[in-house]
Amino acid sequence: MKIKKVLLSAGVHGNEKTPIFLLKKFQKNSIPITRSNFKTEILIANPQAVKLHQRYLDVDLNRCFSSEKLDKPHPVKYEEIQAQAINRRVQESQIDLILDFHTTTSSNMGITLLLSNDHPFNLKLAAYLAEHNDLVRIVLNAEQKQNNRLRHLIPLGMTVEIGGIAPNVVDPVWVERLEYLVQQILEYLEQINQDRPPVTPKIITLYSLQEPVYFPTDDQGEIVAMVHPNLHGSDYSVLNPDEPMFIDLDGNNIYYSGETANILFVSESAYFEKQIAFYLATKKKISIE
Amino acid sequence: MKIKKVLLSAGVHGNEKTPIFLLKKFQKNSIPITRSNFKTEILIANPQAVKLHQRYLDVDLNRCFSSEKLDKPHPVKYEEIQAQAINRRVQESQIDLILDFHTTTSSNMGITLLLSNDHPFNLKLAAYLAEHNDLVRIVLNAEQKQNNRLRHLIPLGMTVEIGGIAPNVVDPVWVERLEYLVQQILEYLEQINQDRPPVTPKIITLYSLQEPVYFPTDDQGEIVAMVHPNLHGSDYSVLNPDEPMFIDLDGNNIYYSGETANILFVSESAYFEKQIAFYLATKKKISIE
Repeated sequence: MKIKKVLLSAGVHGNEKTPIFLLKKFQKNSIPITRSNFKTEILIANPQAVKLHQRYLDVDLNRCFSSEKLDKPHPVKYEEIQAQAINRRVQESQIDLILDFHTTTSSNMGITLLLSNDHPFNLKLAAYLAEHNDLVRIVLNAEQKQNNRLRHLIPLGMTVEIGGIAPNVVDPVWVERLEYLVQQILEYLEQINQDRPPVTPKIITLYSLQEPVYFPTDDQGEIVAMVHPNLHGSDYSVLNPDEPMFIDLDGNNIYYSGETANILFVSESAYFEKQIAFYLATKKKISIE
Repeated sequence: MKIKKVLLSAGVHGNEKTPIFLLKKFQKNSIPITRSNFKTEILIANPQAVKLHQRYLDVDLNRCFSSEKLDKPHPVKYEEIQAQAINRRVQESQIDLILDFHTTTSSNMGITLLLSNDHPFNLKLAAYLAEHNDLVRIVLNAEQKQNNRLRHLIPLGMTVEIGGIAPNVVDPVWVERLEYLVQQILEYLEQINQDRPPVTPKIITLYSLQEPVYFPTDDQGEIVAMVHPNLHGSDYSVLNPDEPMFIDLDGNNIYYSGETANILFVSESAYFEKQIAFYLATKKKISIE
């Protein structure tokens, strides 16, 4: 398999400024991103939201890439129009691989690779990155129903979440880390294209994303508890049955009653409006090839 | 001087959820906040913005407390109307002391007390808190022109900034720290009212807030540099002449040319829309009493 065109995307959420800054750096050609055997394009996906320092204008752009929305004859919402335009560009430019960069705000997700699917190419690339970078963790959505993210436009690629980084902030430490990751990916692809694929581990650890856990609410739908301090900031750690997961307004613990799981996206600011406290995930080891 | 009524305020910015959670806890009476010799009232200052998870609806509420805006005969903007209502309540309830709780997002401001003015009462309370709490630092606005914050409605009080905490996130560690600070303040006030004022240091260290430093921009007004990694996350540290303060899109350093100063509110997310990179401050020691 040869990769001819790679798309680097940022700004699907307009207030995630750190990857946008890096892609602007690439655009200024201060750092080469095209290699001998493939080309790299850059996309700032939601420029209006970037300008307004908002996550989105009308609706979350990263929920607009379902085939249903892409086929809508007369989209009205800004992000729905934008999603169709991006889809046209991806098809016309014959993009082979999408790398869509995002940031998490409160949750300490390090570098989280959200794979588009379990295609062996995606698994191997992820395995290579995890092997060479301690910050990297690999997540696969357990239920592949929601194919509405930018990464779902084509089979190869992933969303890369880095953080925590506050909204609208360009964090210089993370700019450097992400630049390093992009260079690792480009090197890997160059070698794949030269038919000398880098050695990748045969067994990889991945987190299979399960359902969200919601905050407890009162009759008016208002949140009445906070995430327990043991969990806050402890993304990827293990949550066992009977461990406290919330503290309510009276200072009482609320305990977890499910099966042992790992916790992801803990206290993620962008999920607060959906009243999601964190996600559960199952840690797995799988063989590849 | 006796304190009869204290106002604890949160939610002047609707997306600063951590102090709001604490005040809701107080409202549920799970923790007593009224003392033998004074009463404590609670204000959630911008309930509409809280509901919408936004900093504000029309304009920043914490710029609406100037006498000019409070005297406006027919305010139209939501926050201007709200500021007038809050002012009426403060006057009618005969509030003696305002403690207005805020959070910073990206900047590591610890517990920063922004004093309403240099009234000896404010200085002594701040000195007491700094003496008993290592996280506390005291800031006084050098130019007292902008008397448009909630704290400016009456002579006694302060804004308390805690953080960094991502917007809309209830950080359990900070809830606990802020609860501890509030209890320290209430104890102090109780003793003042009993004419047995706690011992306070005679000399205090404070930071006199100077002008902001803006991001470099291009012809289109777009930001073209990031805060230097040495500065990011290093609030209250010293910036000397000829030290790098930004890195531009070409990877070149931009150097500071002013006089030695301390840096505050570094990479503060809420100031990004104003293109403020950080504030300068002068560290001073002053005698009180």
